[in-house]
Amino acid sequence: MKVCEVISVGTELLMGQIADTDAQAIGRMLPELGIAHYHRQTVGDNLDRLVGALRLALSRSDVVITIGGLGPTEDDLTREAIAAALSVSLEADESFARVLRQMFATRNLPWVDSQFRQAHRPAGAEFLDNPNGSAPGLWCRRGNQVIVAMPGPPGEFLPMLGGPVRERLIREFGGAETLHSRILKVCSLGESVVEDRLKDLLASTNPTIAPYAKPGEVHLRLTARGDASLLDPMVAEVRRRLGDSVFGEDADTLESVVLALARDRGWKLGVAESMTGGLVGARLTGVPGASDTFAGGIIAYTPAQKVGLLGVSHEVLDGEGPVSSACASAMAEGCREQLGVEFAIATTGNAGPTADVDGKPVGLTYVAVATPDANHVEEFKFRGTRDGNRTRATQAALTLAYRILRG
Amino acid sequence: MKVCEVISVGTELLMGQIADTDAQAIGRMLPELGIAHYHRQTVGDNLDRLVGALRLALSRSDVVITIGGLGPTEDDLTREAIAAALSVSLEADESFARVLRQMFATRNLPWVDSQFRQAHRPAGAEFLDNPNGSAPGLWCRRGNQVIVAMPGPPGEFLPMLGGPVRERLIREFGGAETLHSRILKVCSLGESVVEDRLKDLLASTNPTIAPYAKPGEVHLRLTARGDASLLDPMVAEVRRRLGDSVFGEDADTLESVVLALARDRGWKLGVAESMTGGLVGARLTGVPGASDTFAGGIIAYTPAQKVGLLGVSHEVLDGEGPVSSACASAMAEGCREQLGVEFAIATTGNAGPTADVDGKPVGLTYVAVATPDANHVEEFKFRGTRDGNRTRATQAALTLAYRILRG
Repeated sequence: MKVCEVISVGTELLMGQIADTDAQAIGRMLPELGIAHYHRQTVGDNLDRLVGALRLALSRSDVVITIGGLGPTEDDLTREAIAAALSVSLEADESFARVLRQMFATRNLPWVDSQFRQAHRPAGAEFLDNPNGSAPGLWCRRGNQVIVAMPGPPGEFLPMLGGPVRERLIREFGGAETLHSRILKVCSLGESVVEDRLKDLLASTNPTIAPYAKPGEVHLRLTARGDASLLDPMVAEVRRRLGDSVFGEDADTLESVVLALARDRGWKLGVAESMTGGLVGARLTGVPGASDTFAGGIIAYTPAQKVGLLGVSHEVLDGEGPVSSACASAMAEGCREQLGVEFAIATTGNAGPTADVDGKPVGLTYVAVATPDANHVEEFKFRGTRDGNRTRATQAALTLAYRILRG
Repeated sequence: MKVCEVISVGTELLMGQIADTDAQAIGRMLPELGIAHYHRQTVGDNLDRLVGALRLALSRSDVVITIGGLGPTEDDLTREAIAAALSVSLEADESFARVLRQMFATRNLPWVDSQFRQAHRPAGAEFLDNPNGSAPGLWCRRGNQVIVAMPGPPGEFLPMLGGPVRERLIREFGGAETLHSRILKVCSLGESVVEDRLKDLLASTNPTIAPYAKPGEVHLRLTARGDASLLDPMVAEVRRRLGDSVFGEDADTLESVVLALARDRGWKLGVAESMTGGLVGARLTGVPGASDTFAGGIIAYTPAQKVGLLGVSHEVLDGEGPVSSACASAMAEGCREQLGVEFAIATTGNAGPTADVDGKPVGLTYVAVATPDANHVEEFKFRGTRDGNRTRATQAALTLAYRILRG
C-alpha cells in the first residue's frame, strides 16, 4: 500500500486563525483510494522549515500533498521549497504566463507583476488546472514519488482534490484493494466497557474496528479492505454483543434516532428543561424534518415557572426541591399535559459553578421520561464545568429517551 | 524566545473525522505568552510513529504539547510514547488509581480494569488535574524542556489549556517582555466595516490590533508588549469609533451582557423560540447565575403550540403565516404574558433544508423583542445550512435584544 503525507502551509494555520478543513478532506478521501496516511505536518510561511518538512516527508512517503503557499505574494513559498527539496531549478513558463495575463484580462482584474510568480514551476513539474483561481497546482514527479501542490482556499482546493487529483492518484498510486467503512454508534456504555466486550474483535485485521469516544457516546469505525461485504458479519457480531446500545450507524445521531422511534409509534414529543435551558430542544430541532414529531417545549428555569408553566406542585418544590427525582417526574408529566404530547423528556439539576440555594451539590442531575404508560427517572452526579455538566445532562436525557423508546 | 511544538494524536484526525480545534486553540494562545510556534505534527494511534514525532519535536523545540491518546483503551498510547521518547519507565500511581475508582463510583459508571491505564505516568512526570474527565494530563520535564500531555476531547482539553497549563507555561517558558491582551467584542458591524473604521490603528505596532471574525461578531485582540497601560488609550479610541457596537470585553458574551443589562433594569427575561428550538435559551442559561434574571421560555415549534402555549392568533397563522413579522411579534408578546416577564425574545423562520409548507424560502427569519414599552422586529434572509441558519438566527435575536436594552 502506498503512503501519503500531507503538509499544510501557512502561518495563519499555526496561529489558529483558520481550521484546516483541506487536510480533513484529504483524510476522508484517502482510505477509499487504498492509500495509507500516517503523518501530517503543519508549517508556517518559512522557506527553510518548508523545505525541511518536504525532505522529511519524501524520506518516508510515496505521495506528498502540500496545501497552500502558491499565491502571488512573497510569503507564498511552496514553489521555491519544492524546487529546493527536489534539488531542481525553478523555471518560468512563458506560455503559461500568457494564459495568466489572458485570465486576468477576461476577468477585469488588475495585473500586477507579482502574479508572474504563479507561472513558475520546479523543472520537470506539470501544472494542474485550477478552474476557481489564478494559482495553478503542481504535479512534481521524482522517480516513484510525487509531490502534489494545491492552493489553500477551500473553494479552489476541494474541486481540484475531488476531481483530477483524485483520479490521477487512483491511477498512479491507488491500492488494488479499496477501503470500505461503516460507523456504528453506541450510547449507555463507556469506551472501556465497549472495548472489553469486543476485545478479540479489535485484533481483527480485515475488517478492522477502531473505537472513538465522544461525550456520552462511543463510535466504532469498521473498515474492510477490498470487499465491502466483509463488513456485514462483523457489524452483526458487534450488534449482537452490544445489543440496543448500538443506537445507529453513519449519519444517525442520538436525536435523529429518538425522533424516528417516536415517529414509528405515532407519538408526538415534547421537552421540559430546567438545567439544560433549551439544549435538548435545540438538538432535537437540529434534525431536518423534526417538526412532524417534535411539538415543542417549556424551559422552566425558575421554581415559579415550574409551577406556572408545568404544574409542578408546591409540595414537591418545598419538599424534595427543584433538583430532585420527584421534580423531574412532575416536569415530564406536566409537559405531556401542557403540550398534549405522548412522550416528554425533562431535565433538572445544578450545573454549577456553585451549590444551589437548597444546598444541592454541583453536578447533581435528574433526567426523566414520561410516556402514556410510565414515568422513568435517572440520577447522575456529574463532575465538571457548567458547560460540561449541561452537555452531559442533555446527552443523558436523550440516552434515557432512546432506551425507553427502544423498549 | 522559547519555541513550542504541537503533536496532535489520533487516527480520527488523520481520517478527517474531526477538526483539530484543540491545536487551533493552542495556536491562538501562544503569541500572547511570548512563545514561538513553528511546527505542528499530526500522527495516528501508532506507538513507533508517535515516539518518532516526540523525538523530532524534542530535537527542535522547548515545549512539546501533545493532544489526545490519554484514554483507557489500548490505542491510547501517549503515556507509553512519552516514556519511550524520554527513555524512562512507565509507573503506576496507586493513590491516583484510588481517586479514579472513587470518581467512577460517584458517577455510577462501571469500572473495568483498563481504566487503571490512566493512573500510569512516565517516571518523574506530574499529573495535571482534569476536572471534566477521567484522564489526567501529564507535565513531563526533561532538563530545560517539557512535554505537556492533555486529553483530546475539547470539553476536557480547553479548560486545562486555558487555565493551569497557560499559567505554568507563562511562568516557566513565557517571553521576557510579557504580552498583555484585551479583547473588545463587537456586534452589529461586519469585519470590513470595522477594519475600515480602524484602518490607521491596525498599522500600530505597540499595541497591535488583530481583528478576528466570528459568526455575527468581530473580536479585536489588542496586544501590548511590556507595559499593560499602553492598552488603555487604544481601547478608548476603538470604543469611541465603534460606539455601542462594542458590547463587551474579554470573558463577556453577548448573552451575559444581555442578562446584565436586563438585571440593571430589574427586568425578568423570557424566550419564545420556533426556528431556534431552544438555542437562545441554551445560550442565556449557559451564563452562571442566569436564574436571577432568566425566567424561562417556550419552544413553540408547531403552529398548534404557537396558539396553545403562546396565544398566537389563528388570524396571524392563517394570514401572514408562522414565518412572518406578525408571528414573531405575537410570540414575543405572548411570552411576556405567559411567563409574566418584562422582556421577551422570539424567533421564527425556515432553517431549511427545504422551503416550508407555506412556500417561505430557506433562511427567511424574523426575530422580535417585546418590552413594556414597545415591540421590535427584524427580518433576515440567511443563506446557509440548517445549522448555520439556526446559529445566525440565535445571534441575530441576541443582537437585537442587546441593542434594545442598550437603548
